[in-house]
Amino acid sequence: MSKKLSIKELAKLAGVSTATVSRILNEKGGYSSETEEKVLRIVKETGFSINVAAKALRTNISKSIGVVVPDITNEFFSRIVRQISLYFLAYNYSVFVCDSNESLEIEKKYISELQSRNIDGIIYVQGQNNNGLEDMDLKIPVVYIDRSPVNADVVIESDNFLGGVIVADELLRLGCKNLIAIRDIHNLSSINDRIEGFISRLREENVESKIFYIDNPTVEDGKIKMQEIIDSGYKFDGVFASNDIVSIGVYNTLKNNGIAVPKDVKLIGFDGNELIKSCFDFLLTIDQDVEKMAVEGCKILYEMMTEDISIKTRIKIPVSLNRGRGESNGTFN
Amino acid sequence: MSKKLSIKELAKLAGVSTATVSRILNEKGGYSSETEEKVLRIVKETGFSINVAAKALRTNISKSIGVVVPDITNEFFSRIVRQISLYFLAYNYSVFVCDSNESLEIEKKYISELQSRNIDGIIYVQGQNNNGLEDMDLKIPVVYIDRSPVNADVVIESDNFLGGVIVADELLRLGCKNLIAIRDIHNLSSINDRIEGFISRLREENVESKIFYIDNPTVEDGKIKMQEIIDSGYKFDGVFASNDIVSIGVYNTLKNNGIAVPKDVKLIGFDGNELIKSCFDFLLTIDQDVEKMAVEGCKILYEMMTEDISIKTRIKIPVSLNRGRGESNGTFN
Repeated sequence: MSKKLSIKELAKLAGVSTATVSRILNEKGGYSSETEEKVLRIVKETGFSINVAAKALRTNISKSIGVVVPDITNEFFSRIVRQISLYFLAYNYSVFVCDSNESLEIEKKYISELQSRNIDGIIYVQGQNNNGLEDMDLKIPVVYIDRSPVNADVVIESDNFLGGVIVADELLRLGCKNLIAIRDIHNLSSINDRIEGFISRLREENVESKIFYIDNPTVEDGKIKMQEIIDSGYKFDGVFASNDIVSIGVYNTLKNNGIAVPKDVKLIGFDGNELIKSCFDFLLTIDQDVEKMAVEGCKILYEMMTEDISIKTRIKIPVSLNRGRGESNGTFN
Repeated sequence: MSKKLSIKELAKLAGVSTATVSRILNEKGGYSSETEEKVLRIVKETGFSINVAAKALRTNISKSIGVVVPDITNEFFSRIVRQISLYFLAYNYSVFVCDSNESLEIEKKYISELQSRNIDGIIYVQGQNNNGLEDMDLKIPVVYIDRSPVNADVVIESDNFLGGVIVADELLRLGCKNLIAIRDIHNLSSINDRIEGFISRLREENVESKIFYIDNPTVEDGKIKMQEIIDSGYKFDGVFASNDIVSIGVYNTLKNNGIAVPKDVKLIGFDGNELIKSCFDFLLTIDQDVEKMAVEGCKILYEMMTEDISIKTRIKIPVSLNRGRGESNGTFN
């Protein structure tokens, strides 16, 4: 029999799922010997061959995925990478990570290279200046985490809008009247949603707020902007820093100006950076469930790769307020 | 002419270096048109073919290296990765990063996979339980950074022994009489050297010290051990934490016990972790020149890959004491 079957046709003939066929052909276990015999018999009878098996035979390489992140030195992204690696380890996949250094050009280069090297799927965290890969010819499944272009099929992200709402609620609960937010200028969906949630909740309560912009979400930019605000004489008693790294700069500048946190000014960051929490266990932040985001992305990517189906979904992972040892301890400085 | 020449023979015939031949064949520029004509004429006359060109033609993939690190969430390793990516970007190489999660088994899997995918060279930071790849059949150049097996050909590392000496000197200069060090139990060359430098310098001055061991170099283990030491009543006025992450645990436990740093106890860490410095700009640490380590490793790997030569060398990168804003400010707590 010369006609080549697709994995779907083979699965249909055998009366099993494509995933089961894939597992049997790759000798991964998790099926009965009866099912195995049945599938292998059909493979033999039909002269079945699939790209994947042929490719593996030809190159003797195993399954793998690629992960592209914009800044591997940022704990938020490296935690995503760590969790993805752990997830796919259980399936005996290799995970190759590429650091795009916030450059769309480099992202495209890596995604093209990963495809050339027979990678099976990609998890993609975009840089802050980018707008997706609409002009790229992607032949493999892609899952976006955290940041998403408008045309993305699969996006896993924190509920950033909710995070902004929680920040506003908490600052109001703590008695703040004059609120400011410090964010970077980049047009990222994640940061936009946080600030939008923050502002919209304050509007409901008829509380004014002012947004200050910094070039980049760094400690240094947070420091400089906070000093500028203090020097300008602008009055505030609550600060929302759009991530924890910025909040460190804000905190240190407040402290150096003799302004106590949280006595004089309340401060809330965003991310739940573990190392910063270890240093300052009294700072408030919004915890992102980074591990859950990564796992949900992995699950969908794995399904797309093994079931040979296309999926269109946008999943929002809940966030939560972390008060650290917050108000229980008055001696923060 | 049917005999196939090696790149070395071709270079000899043309009277140029193998690197120049490589650059000409890959159209990378940086040579005169005269040299180019000469080499291409010999290529044509001899029917020269090399593996690299054939491979690139066959697969249409570009040059690349792999980087294997034990814990991508540790800033020390992610900074190495970032610098390697930047270095090779300039040569238009792709850099694929693998997180081994401190497992020798996973390291071996990744190194084998990287070879299978036509990677040109590997930069390898071993896990803390590992002893190299002596049983692996490596066909591509490998450069070790930070941690090294005894049989490694190329190793780039900080001068950890010197770092330990500097810590001892500084603690003595600050007037400490009763010194302790807290380190993890893993048999890593880097940590062993730090502690050895520390002890040997103290011996020269006839100062006693005591080493305490923790299971892992984490904030939590640092905290717990410091509390145990305090509870035991052991007297100390200077602490060497074998990395900055451990020093955070030590610092917070001292603070929670009403022991002021640096008034009551002096504390020095190791690494020069940038985020920790941003949080606690008064903590003392030994700065490792992470970027220089990475660049030196890249230079040698690039030479090995393009010159087709084997190199045997061990390079120690100087370290330096970082006093933060140290003694200039008395109000550390």
